[in-house]
This record gives sequence, C-alpha cells and structure tokens, in this order.
Amino acid sequence: MARMAKVVELPSIAKINKSQGKISAQLTQALREAVQSGDLQPGDPLPSSRELAQTLGVARGTIIEAYDQLLAEGVFDSQARTGTYVSHALAKKTTQHSQKETIPSVIPLTKSALSYAQVLKEFKPLPHTPFAVSVPIGRTQPSDIWRKFGNKFRSRGAGVPSGYGEPQGVLSLRVAIADYVRRSRSVHCEPDQIVITPGIQQSLYICSQILFEPKDEVWIEDPAYRGTTAIFEHAVQNIRMVRVPVDEEGIQVETGIKLSKHARAAFVTPSHQYPLGMPMSLARRTALLAWAKQQNAWIIEDDYDSELRYNGQPFPSLQGMAPDQVIYLGTFSKVLFPSLRLGYAVLPKELVAPFCGLRVLIDRHPPAADQHVLAAFIQEGYLERHIRRTRNVYAEVREYIIGLIEKYIPQELAWLQPGDQGMHMVLWLAHHINDIEVASSALDAGIAIKAISPTFSKEQQRPGLIVGLGDFEPELMRQAIKKLSEIIQQHGKPT
Amino acid sequence: MARMAKVVELPSIAKINKSQGKISAQLTQALREAVQSGDLQPGDPLPSSRELAQTLGVARGTIIEAYDQLLAEGVFDSQARTGTYVSHALAKKTTQHSQKETIPSVIPLTKSALSYAQVLKEFKPLPHTPFAVSVPIGRTQPSDIWRKFGNKFRSRGAGVPSGYGEPQGVLSLRVAIADYVRRSRSVHCEPDQIVITPGIQQSLYICSQILFEPKDEVWIEDPAYRGTTAIFEHAVQNIRMVRVPVDEEGIQVETGIKLSKHARAAFVTPSHQYPLGMPMSLARRTALLAWAKQQNAWIIEDDYDSELRYNGQPFPSLQGMAPDQVIYLGTFSKVLFPSLRLGYAVLPKELVAPFCGLRVLIDRHPPAADQHVLAAFIQEGYLERHIRRTRNVYAEVREYIIGLIEKYIPQELAWLQPGDQGMHMVLWLAHHINDIEVASSALDAGIAIKAISPTFSKEQQRPGLIVGLGDFEPELMRQAIKKLSEIIQQHGKPT
Repeated sequence: MARMAKVVELPSIAKINKSQGKISAQLTQALREAVQSGDLQPGDPLPSSRELAQTLGVARGTIIEAYDQLLAEGVFDSQARTGTYVSHALAKKTTQHSQKETIPSVIPLTKSALSYAQVLKEFKPLPHTPFAVSVPIGRTQPSDIWRKFGNKFRSRGAGVPSGYGEPQGVLSLRVAIADYVRRSRSVHCEPDQIVITPGIQQSLYICSQILFEPKDEVWIEDPAYRGTTAIFEHAVQNIRMVRVPVDEEGIQVETGIKLSKHARAAFVTPSHQYPLGMPMSLARRTALLAWAKQQNAWIIEDDYDSELRYNGQPFPSLQGMAPDQVIYLGTFSKVLFPSLRLGYAVLPKELVAPFCGLRVLIDRHPPAADQHVLAAFIQEGYLERHIRRTRNVYAEVREYIIGLIEKYIPQELAWLQPGDQGMHMVLWLAHHINDIEVASSALDAGIAIKAISPTFSKEQQRPGLIVGLGDFEPELMRQAIKKLSEIIQQHGKPT
Repeated sequence: MARMAKVVELPSIAKINKSQGKISAQLTQALREAVQSGDLQPGDPLPSSRELAQTLGVARGTIIEAYDQLLAEGVFDSQARTGTYVSHALAKKTTQHSQKETIPSVIPLTKSALSYAQVLKEFKPLPHTPFAVSVPIGRTQPSDIWRKFGNKFRSRGAGVPSGYGEPQGVLSLRVAIADYVRRSRSVHCEPDQIVITPGIQQSLYICSQILFEPKDEVWIEDPAYRGTTAIFEHAVQNIRMVRVPVDEEGIQVETGIKLSKHARAAFVTPSHQYPLGMPMSLARRTALLAWAKQQNAWIIEDDYDSELRYNGQPFPSLQGMAPDQVIYLGTFSKVLFPSLRLGYAVLPKELVAPFCGLRVLIDRHPPAADQHVLAAFIQEGYLERHIRRTRNVYAEVREYIIGLIEKYIPQELAWLQPGDQGMHMVLWLAHHINDIEVASSALDAGIAIKAISPTFSKEQQRPGLIVGLGDFEPELMRQAIKKLSEIIQQHGKPT
C-alpha cells in the first residue's frame, strides 16, 4: 500500500499557487497573514521545514527562506529544542484582532430566535449549593458499583466505542426498564414500546411536535413544570394551552372539560404534582381517563420522581390503566443524577415510529456506553438498592429542613407544604412578597432556590419557593435557612 | 431523625381501603388482580409478610392469611429459601394478557406523526460490516488513553455524577475545541461562541428552527445530506427549500442567486461536499460569502469530516473568512466514534442565546462525563495524534478498496469518484440500475451500503452507492466487493 506523506495542518497556506510567482515569497506572505488574522497565535509551533516542504512538494530551501524572513521580521521566533514558533512579542496585536470580532452582526434575528433567547434565562442551572433540586451529593451519590460498571463496560463488550446506533436506544436497557417500571409502577409495556431519551424534557418536546394538528388545544396543569409550558409558549405554533387548575386531589378534570372538552391531550404529573407535590386521587384518575377515552385524547403522564416516596403505597400508573392512550415518561435524572442525561418514554405502539422519526432528526440516538452501564445497574438490582438508600436520606434531609424552617422562618411570612414524596417541598410566601426577588437575593447569597410563581398561569399566580432536598452538610443547610429567613423578612417588610 | 419504615414496591395494593371491609380479603383480591393484569408476573418475588405488614400498617397475620389463600389457589408458590413468589404455572395466562394489549389504539395519528414515521425508515442504522460509514473498528478505534481518561474522570474530579449543567456544555471542552478549530481549520472564535451538541444533526435541527421567518427560502446543495433535507421536508413549516446544484467546484452560487436571490440562509459542505466529495473552490467560497454579505444571509458550514484529508492543504474554513455570518458545525462522530454523540456548533455571538434556548427545551444539556474526558483528550494532544494515525489507516483502506473495485466490478456498470478526503467514496452506477434495490440486496447479503439517489432532488437524481471506509479485515472487504459486484451485475442485466 502507498506510503503516506505526513500532512501538516496549516489551512492558511492553501492559497499558495505554485504556478504564480516565487513560492517562498507567497509562503512568507501567507504565514504573515495567518498571524495577523489570528489563525496562528503567539506560541504556536510551526511544522519543521522538512515536513512542510514535503507537504507542499517544494524544496526544503524554499521553506527555510520564508521562515528566515519571518524570523528577521520578528513574526517568528526559534529555540534549539522547540523549533520555530510564532513570537510571543505579538500577543498584543492578536488581542486587537479579537476585539475587532466583537462588532455585532447586522443580520437581524428572527422572532423565534429572540423568543428562544428569553427561554434560556429561565433555565440557568443553579449552583450546587442548598437547596438545589437533584444534586447527587453526599449519601445520594451512586455507589462505587456505578463507576466500576462504567469502567468495565467501556473497556470491553457492548459499551466500547462503536458506530451509529438504534434511535430507540439499546435493547438491553429497554428490557431492563420494561421490567423495572412494571414492578415498581404497574406500567404495562414491551421493550419495543420504550424509547431511551436524554430525560423527560426531550420526551415532552417530541410529544409537542407529533401529537397535535394546527388549532388543537392541550390541557396543562396550573401550576406546571416550566419545561412543559415553555415548549407550548415558544416551540409550537397554533396550539392553544388550556391551563387547568389543580387542587389537593390533582388536576380538576371537571374544570378542564368546561374549558376545553375537545382538547387533544393532557399533560399531567399524577404521582407527585409538579410543583405542589400531592398525588392525583383515584377519583380524578378515573375521571381523567374516562374523558380521554371519550374524546380520543392522549394522556402524557410525567412521572419524574415517583421513586422517592416516604410512606404509604403509590397509586398504580395511569399507563397501567389505559396503555393505549397514555404516554408514560420517566427519567434517571432524579433517582441517579441529572448529568447522566438518560430517561425513557413508554409509548402506545403506533407512536413509537413517529417519536423515533423526529428523534432521529433531533439527535440521531442516545450515546451508547452509559446505556449499557445503566442496563446492568438495573438488571443486577443496584438501582432499586440505590433508591431504597437515597429515599431514606432524602426523608431524613426533609425532616431536618422542615425543622429548620419551623425554627428560623416566621410563620406569618412563609409556611411549608411538604407532601409525602419527591425531591422538593414548597415554601409558600405571604402574598405581598415577590418570590422572584427573594430567589434572586438568595442566589446572590449563595443559596440555590427557585421561585414558584413562573409555574402558574398569570391568573393563578402565588408567591413561593421550591426547596430542593440534597444531602448537604447539616450546618451548611442551617446557615442557608437562617440566611434565607433574613432575606424573606427583608422582602416581607411593609414598604 | 425519624426511623423510616421500609417501603415495599407494590403499587397494585394502593386501592386497599382499611375502613372498608376485611383487609385480608381486599389484599387477596388486589394481588390476584395484579397477577391477572400482568403487574405481577410468574417468578416475581413477593415481599415478606413482615415487610408488607409494616408498610400497610396491619397485623402480620392479615398478610399471611392472604398469602395462604393465594398459595391455595395456585396463584402463588413458595420455597424455603426464596420465599413466596408468583407461580410459574401462570406463564400462559399472562401471555394472553399481553396479546390483548396489541389491539391497536383508535386515536388517529396526526399528519406530522405519520410523516415522522416515514423519516425513521430512512435512518435505520447499518450493521457494522463493510462498507458502513464511520465504524470505529480495527486500527481506527480510539487508543487505550481514551478508556483510561474515561475511568479517571468518572471516578474523581469534574466527571463524577453531578447535577444539572450548562446548556452550552462544559467550559473546558469549549476551550479545547476553540483552540483546536483555530489551529486545524482557521475557525475564529471564543469558547463562549461554542455550544456542545450531540453531533451535527442537532445543530442542523436547531438552525432550522431559529434562523427562519415564515415563507423564507433556504439554499440546500443538490445532492445533500438526508439529515438536512429531511428536516426541511418534515420538521419545519412554511420554509421553501431551494435545491442548488453542485459541480466539481461545489455549490453553483450563480444558479442559487438565479433561483432564490433573497434566501435567508445556505447550508453547505465546503470541505468535502456531501456526498460527492469535492471541496468548494476558492472562487465559489468568495462568491458565496459575497452573496451572503449582500443579502444578510446566514451560511451554515457543515464540516463533518474535514479532518480526514489524504493530501494537500485544506482550504481555510468559511467561518474564518466571515465569522459574523457563518455558523460552523463540527462533530467527533467521524474522527472519534459516532456512539459518543458529541459535536459542536461555533456561532456568531448573538446566536448563542437563541441556540441554547431551544436546546434547553430539547434536552437541557449534554451528558457531563464524556465532555470532560474529551476535553482532556484534546488538550493533551491525543485527538490530533489519533487523527494522524487514523488518517493513514483510512488512506490505506481507501486505496485497497479502489483496487478491489477496479479488479472486480465491471467499469461499464459502476465507476468510482474517490475524492481527496473523507470517510466514504461514491461508486456511480450505470443509469439503468436502481441504486436503492442494489443497496437493499447488498444489505440482505450482509453488506452495509447506502444508495445515493435519496440525497438528490428528483430532477437531479442519479444512481450510485456510498462506500464507507472502515478498517475491516482485508479478506472480508474482498469478499464484500466480489459479492457487491455480483449484485450490481444482476441488477444491471438488460431486462
């Protein structure tokens, strides 16, 4: 087979034309321009004259001539051991160049671009301090087994570097999940009804794109997860969101029917209403499914953290009661860790192809290695062990934080609605307090907390804070609650 | 802190109401129904009577009574060592249950759902056999360093399990990429202009959603990557694709201007036209940028495999020539491996927020661990070493396959257009041969090959095959080309 010439990476010299004029002069000019434009920066090494001569197919003397010229100009510098490089003395010049680049473009942004830029502000990740939601810290980190499986499956077998994979995700993980959700959540499905996603967010997005015809209506709980409402505000056209209030039994189905009987779908969080925390009652579940059956509507069951329940039995999933109409969404962000980016959608069979079809256009398929690691982690029972362990930790942290809030925060300004499960609690604020301002002051003081009001429709808005549970140091949490109390009192002063 | 009751996972028994009738009878009924419905399946273990009694808050005798009843009915079985479990004798019954579930739903699918279901068929991943594109096999696999970095960064430091991250991707990787693309591709950017993506596909998708107003037009090369054209066919509304033919110099800018002078953007593959393989000439680059400047149009520069060049110097990127108008897209799917799912978009500054805003709604952010691994792999020089190594391998494989094709495939039926770079070559077929049928027969024979005709507009369609380069065993490749030759001859017979 042919012997390969070593190829040097210097795109700037591509414009050299051997048939036009002296090559060494052209090369000198091209390299000088590359330094001026910033393609080559102070300290960058140049290829040896031998390598470059070979690449360009010219005599080595030609290269040496050009290099000597640039050394003389002070553009290049050279040392015995490291060879020729771009002179450090030029550092100032190239800085000027990058300033030039900051001149704003004149191309006007589209309406959708401006609208997505707004979305981003709301989703800034919180720092990993109390009371960020879902931070795998302290005793809630996955065990050493997770890391060992990672090493094992990456070095041999299924998890090694490989080519393009199935849009639906790897079969072993889908088999493991089908079994897991059946046992823990009464979800009835075959592995071929499961699509592995990067989390619930992508499932919500894809549902918003495939389930609706123009002018359809959709029920969204009020309050609801901003990741759901932001999609319907920004990423779909011609679909009307009908906000349906929730009470202590969950979504008010009767109100939904009054507001929009013919809605095409309902997005609900029956295990643990987001953000309020109560489960949907059996009566409401029955009513919701009866409506859906009568109207041929889809139910999107967002089951983001049902694993973390502190007492009693969970209700079986809606999916188990109506597998042909319910899209069940789960995630490992909450029970394992968010930076894993793995979740799943359980779909009625005829929705699998449409769901995967859009998925292919969005990101082709999930990364392979961690899917194999997770499949083994579930199948060998470690996930359920992990859940049992962390559930106790979260329960402990929850009681500790409840105690702190009772001790430090004046009841007339803020009171808890703890709920029986999940990774967060709601701390309601007195109606005259602006929760967004409180959250912003808290963030400035190093406390990660979110305002609840953006989860409500304008009509239903109430101030409150979403207090995430994480296994931070008790003293750190105590200080944070004390500080938060001060902030709330400051914002709660009569003006 | 409170002592936690052990919670048993049995959602099916949630309906038990302690105030209504005998609890053991209710429990018997609930468990029987759980087995009938498939919530509990043959072989599933039941919790111990002690655990379940504790969870339900009833006497242990109540549980034993119910279990005994179900043991008597043959629904449960028990063994000294493993405790009580669902009887294996019931396997047949639950199979009947799952048959019931296959009854198709009556909810009609939307137009978009039907359309996405069609997309999926075109993106079925090819098996990892010759001549699949981008399969990290043999000498093109990443070195042991990749795996070692994986183990290291996952066990301590930045890559350990963590919470929600930046939508834009981790800073260390963006810094490494900014430096890498400047040196290798003359791309001018700061790390804050880079967004880490799961690959070029997501970048294309997001561009399609943020750059256009309704009724805008867009230039798309003819032929072009199906991942681009499928987006504009299925995932956008009211945007007209204008297919602009390519010739040996790349996209015909003059033709583009004639067809659609006021297009809002042009999607191009200047380093290595996909799928034809030639680079865009300097004259065309200049003309394209002049048009874009005059029309305030965006250029989307898809640079999917410019790293794999076999001789000569690459042209500098379009981005370096007009950083305010060009969106530069890169990926590690080709130079490392596709199952990694990491790529990047280099954006004009004002597009970063809109791009990330939609990204948040699609999948929040990229998985963290591999970003840290890749950052170190690039920063410590291993990526460029890997590229130098695999470039030689691909060059060798390419020459070997060229030789095989010349030897085994009759020139009047099929001829190569090899090109100077990339991971694939085009094997044109005589005009009377149906390339989709050839590819399908090849696949049946275990040969992974793609038809080229779907990359063309209907008007420009020509038959051909996309022959991917991968370091398969030489004998395996020889057999595959011989077999492919037979298939081509069969399909090329006059009928």
